[in-house]
Amino acid sequence: MTTTPMAEPRRHFASDNWAGVHPDVLAAIAAANLGHMPSYGDDAITARATARIQALFGAPVAVHFVFNGTAANVLGLASALESWQSVICSDLAHLNVDECGAWEHHAGSKLLTVPTTDGKLTPQLVESRLTGIGDVHRTQPAAISITQSSEYGTVYTVDEIAALSRLAREHRLLLHMDGARLANAAATLNLALGAFTIAAGVDILTFGGTKNGLIGGEAIIFADPRRTADFGFVRKQGMQLASKMRFVGAQFEALLTNDLWLRSATHANQMALRLYQQVRTIPGVEVTQQVQANAVFARIPAAAIGPLQQHFNFLLWNDRTSEVRWMTAFDTTAEDVDAFAAAIALELGRASASAGVAR
Amino acid sequence: MTTTPMAEPRRHFASDNWAGVHPDVLAAIAAANLGHMPSYGDDAITARATARIQALFGAPVAVHFVFNGTAANVLGLASALESWQSVICSDLAHLNVDECGAWEHHAGSKLLTVPTTDGKLTPQLVESRLTGIGDVHRTQPAAISITQSSEYGTVYTVDEIAALSRLAREHRLLLHMDGARLANAAATLNLALGAFTIAAGVDILTFGGTKNGLIGGEAIIFADPRRTADFGFVRKQGMQLASKMRFVGAQFEALLTNDLWLRSATHANQMALRLYQQVRTIPGVEVTQQVQANAVFARIPAAAIGPLQQHFNFLLWNDRTSEVRWMTAFDTTAEDVDAFAAAIALELGRASASAGVAR
Amino acid sequence: MTTTPMAEPRRHFASDNWAGVHPDVLAAIAAANLGHMPSYGDDAITARATARIQALFGAPVAVHFVFNGTAANVLGLASALESWQSVICSDLAHLNVDECGAWEHHAGSKLLTVPTTDGKLTPQLVESRLTGIGDVHRTQPAAISITQSSEYGTVYTVDEIAALSRLAREHRLLLHMDGARLANAAATLNLALGAFTIAAGVDILTFGGTKNGLIGGEAIIFADPRRTADFGFVRKQGMQLASKMRFVGAQFEALLTNDLWLRSATHANQMALRLYQQVRTIPGVEVTQQVQANAVFARIPAAAIGPLQQHFNFLLWNDRTSEVRWMTAFDTTAEDVDAFAAAIALELGRASASAGVAR
Amino acid sequence: MTTTPMAEPRRHFASDNWAGVHPDVLAAIAAANLGHMPSYGDDAITARATARIQALFGAPVAVHFVFNGTAANVLGLASALESWQSVICSDLAHLNVDECGAWEHHAGSKLLTVPTTDGKLTPQLVESRLTGIGDVHRTQPAAISITQSSEYGTVYTVDEIAALSRLAREHRLLLHMDGARLANAAATLNLALGAFTIAAGVDILTFGGTKNGLIGGEAIIFADPRRTADFGFVRKQGMQLASKMRFVGAQFEALLTNDLWLRSATHANQMALRLYQQVRTIPGVEVTQQVQANAVFARIPAAAIGPLQQHFNFLLWNDRTSEVRWMTAFDTTAEDVDAFAAAIALELGRASASAGVAR
Repeated sequence: MTTTPMAEPRRHFASDNWAGVHPDVLAAIAAANLGHMPSYGDDAITARATARIQALFGAPVAVHFVFNGTAANVLGLASALESWQSVICSDLAHLNVDECGAWEHHAGSKLLTVPTTDGKLTPQLVESRLTGIGDVHRTQPAAISITQSSEYGTVYTVDEIAALSRLAREHRLLLHMDGARLANAAATLNLALGAFTIAAGVDILTFGGTKNGLIGGEAIIFADPRRTADFGFVRKQGMQLASKMRFVGAQFEALLTNDLWLRSATHANQMALRLYQQVRTIPGVEVTQQVQANAVFARIPAAAIGPLQQHFNFLLWNDRTSEVRWMTAFDTTAEDVDAFAAAIALELGRASASAGVAR
Repeated sequence: MTTTPMAEPRRHFASDNWAGVHPDVLAAIAAANLGHMPSYGDDAITARATARIQALFGAPVAVHFVFNGTAANVLGLASALESWQSVICSDLAHLNVDECGAWEHHAGSKLLTVPTTDGKLTPQLVESRLTGIGDVHRTQPAAISITQSSEYGTVYTVDEIAALSRLAREHRLLLHMDGARLANAAATLNLALGAFTIAAGVDILTFGGTKNGLIGGEAIIFADPRRTADFGFVRKQGMQLASKMRFVGAQFEALLTNDLWLRSATHANQMALRLYQQVRTIPGVEVTQQVQANAVFARIPAAAIGPLQQHFNFLLWNDRTSEVRWMTAFDTTAEDVDAFAAAIALELGRASASAGVAR
Repeated sequence: MTTTPMAEPRRHFASDNWAGVHPDVLAAIAAANLGHMPSYGDDAITARATARIQALFGAPVAVHFVFNGTAANVLGLASALESWQSVICSDLAHLNVDECGAWEHHAGSKLLTVPTTDGKLTPQLVESRLTGIGDVHRTQPAAISITQSSEYGTVYTVDEIAALSRLAREHRLLLHMDGARLANAAATLNLALGAFTIAAGVDILTFGGTKNGLIGGEAIIFADPRRTADFGFVRKQGMQLASKMRFVGAQFEALLTNDLWLRSATHANQMALRLYQQVRTIPGVEVTQQVQANAVFARIPAAAIGPLQQHFNFLLWNDRTSEVRWMTAFDTTAEDVDAFAAAIALELGRASASAGVAR
Repeated sequence: MTTTPMAEPRRHFASDNWAGVHPDVLAAIAAANLGHMPSYGDDAITARATARIQALFGAPVAVHFVFNGTAANVLGLASALESWQSVICSDLAHLNVDECGAWEHHAGSKLLTVPTTDGKLTPQLVESRLTGIGDVHRTQPAAISITQSSEYGTVYTVDEIAALSRLAREHRLLLHMDGARLANAAATLNLALGAFTIAAGVDILTFGGTKNGLIGGEAIIFADPRRTADFGFVRKQGMQLASKMRFVGAQFEALLTNDLWLRSATHANQMALRLYQQVRTIPGVEVTQQVQANAVFARIPAAAIGPLQQHFNFLLWNDRTSEVRWMTAFDTTAEDVDAFAAAIALELGRASASAGVAR
């Protein structure tokens, strides 16, 4: 993946982490700045944020905040696995591709990857890696990790999750969900957060905040609080215990007030849909994945990519197939989308014309 | 160490990380919240903060931001050492005592500790651990780590640092400085930051922000940029790459504007001195360490500790000797100090009276 | 992989590590049992064995002995790589499949696997994993690991190795060779050991002893001795320093006396060829790989596997395709092969007849 | 520690791992060399050796063989601890001093060391490290590790072990015993192996073979077999699974036949006692530790050390105090001892005379 940074402050389609902070979140940080409070999470704000997350999930889940998504996935899974156990995941999983080996380094453990076409695992795909059980020469599969919404912007249905959960139970595997963009999936599914996570059999998940308008902060959620009695040590040893935790708590409290999390995600999804509807008919644009969350994946002529990125930054997902990723955020406007779609149409028209000339 | 959390928002003497955020820092965060910017540190704000730190140190040092002090020390040192190499440090070093084994887990390496009475290493103390050189059964000392200001609130002079640096060079060791409270040391020494760090022979150091009025953020500084060409991978694998890095950069930029870092630290130090001057003459208070930064260490009657903590939280440093730590922050006021000193005098008077009765 | 153990002492086709010890090796151990000698490899016998290996490779290579093949591969590679660097290997590589995650746990690093049909990497296959170079989110490929002879009993030619070496040089990758069965490859290629390893551009390799008639012992060989100046610490920390090293040295000395290593491997290869020539014409046997070393891979009817294993143990390589592995060793006799081939013919005839009846 | 290797094969006082192999052990290896047997420990010989160890300990302990003492201690303890838990041990413990950080690297965990004068922990010494319980900033003590016989050649009594075990139970710590020289302790205590280990409350221990006449091999023993159900994966991932395990099993079977283990250890102890009785009266020799196993520790004039080592190798234990270690082995003869004692007397007489002249 390659991105080209740009100078002027504006909105791009590079990633939802190019966005800034929602004003409500900033306000909550300022409001939390009152005198001294206990550090390391022993403060009232963190306690309130925890309680609100439990209410949102509708279950007495254990909640632990960390700085970023890398740590949320790695520490959540590592706290539940032995190093000789392994995790079955898509070969596109962020955990596998985008963490510079953080899993292998921190957990000292292996990922068993499966090729996927849409970023989603199926029971059949998982079963293909359930080999060598009991053989000391092989790592022992102990968890399935899925990403919701997925790296390809697709969304697992409740039934799909439940099917994976049944398989997991059958083989005594944990079901883990990388929910860096969990809110976007909730907006798509139009379901309560708990309905397609805890109630559907997910054991450990990340509830992402950073990509949904926070400065930074992710919550690790364990369905079974007993699993996590010692997680405080794991987090501290994992270098992820914030000393001024109240400001992470305050961000989440804001995110959970007046459904900000859901409103922001719904908006981002709508902007992706708007973009999709405009680009799908542009000659030269081949949308490659279903648009179910806040990303549009498409193949466009390689020659058009560079010129387009001069105006709006986005990711070249695969330089061999000239597939690109266009991603919207909580602050993307309809005007942004329309301007971008127009630029794409213009650039592809130009490319097509010049290709015509060349011929 | 045990702290008892309190409900109402006020200022305590528990730790400088109980303090909130300086208003200038909050303002800088808000100002950075403009549109989309490249993530992961490829933004202009992070670049500006880096340049200002380089200017402050007066050298083309390499600067890398991470979330917290644990990571700043662990990743800085780990990036320069092999796992079979070891670090000589005080047995009181935060790296050794307060990180729940983060060093051992992340670096897979050993700390060679030396007992100290004032938290400061000396060449002689370091030499006592320079044994087994070349013996494959022993880890090989490869770095000295000192804390400035130290865990006991004491400060190394330039000469002391230079002497350790000479010893380090002689034995091909790196000199590392845990500068979670580097600003407090600078205020005490009344020297430019570079003068008692890079120019004195420090190879790797942490320049702490969190304890000096940031929400959270620490800078790892390498004297020799070549040592750190690959540090980006170390940081990412170490789960410490912030996606919205601009907000870390913005905090540091604010800290370095109008000498906020130095003014805040100077103030905190003055408050500690004020407290020291008031408590030193209170019967029953035995100050145990020189007050050179923003902490006062003292032994007080064990019976007085609990009652006092009802009003002002502070740390019971050593429950066997009833030694306590009183720490000031950028936001501690003269009134806070006076009220606390009065409370100490009152409580110790009460304790003394009741002890008299008991006799 | 599943093996069914058998009671009586006899020769099977399960693995070359089911074989015992060559009598010359036993005699060398007994001869080394003279009084006290320095431990941990500082003895004359280990020095002699080292010198003989250097002579065999025709280069001043660095030689380090370890207990087993797992450690030989893991420590050899880990000593040369950072944890954020990765190794490109076949998805069938022993390093990937059969070490229960030893690489990930010890090196804290990732393997980038490539599907292969014959167990052998090609420059094209390697190039498919040379992506994300310089991107901090991705582990950085730093080595290619090939197995010679491969897990499928195939052998890289000198030209194939040299082509991989050129690619490695071009991309600044190390070339690593898992030579647990290096002797079998040498016998096939009819070349000096150095010719298809060091001279062909291999940087680090394992020269296996255990599978070629030792009780246990492997040599890690570094083409550039400077790379390995500190390897003594890596080996000790890696828990692979034998205290009575002279007995490892003595085994290798015996292996290198009168070309025992080559004679044993040549014999094992001949036995595999003999087996191949007899089974290839048996109806129901489909040989799946070229027989270039000491293994025959074949698909046979699933129903025949169990009954055959009652007499001669061997590995069910893939239970989905009923592919089996038949492996010969230094002590396999022509009579063993003939008896086994006859048993296969008998069993498959029976299976075929019963299948006929069933129809 | 420094040892000077010598050319001619003879018996020294350097270490019991300078000794060779007992003839009975060599014979057992030869006897095990019959045809093919299952690898990786699935053979009848390993099963028999396991059963004999269980009989020796008088309990259904779990037994796992590994290559060396480093691994026996590290894997035994690591399999039972989380990385954020720590082990309390003597600062002289082999685990702490002599493994080049293998514990920290493999377990990613911290050792909490206690200074000892005779190499032995006491409940009081252990209690000094039972601090910070429940504090996430501190590693949590989870095991006590003692060495029997200790690094100083001293031996814990049953009562001393039972007292440590009571403390361990009280604080929910495991009790681990590094028994690299367990046989020497048994010989001294004149007790069954189980009496001062399992029955006295030891949870995990090493039963050393290498220092008692094997080529190489150690047994890890778990009092509670349930603790170790997954140990096979730990051992394989820890790179300590021998493929031709039968030869490790055969060595242990020989060691346990006709009480060879006890006879060898008793003899070594007697030789240490003989040496002690001869040297204690030599002017200039100050024996520094009780001689309870197979080592004599003494301070001798520094000038005498080099000349003496020309004839008999031994360890300079502490070059600052000129303390040396003289160690006997199963094959040390009375003549060896007498010759060595005579050499010491001669050399110290010479040193004394020359010192007299110098005055």
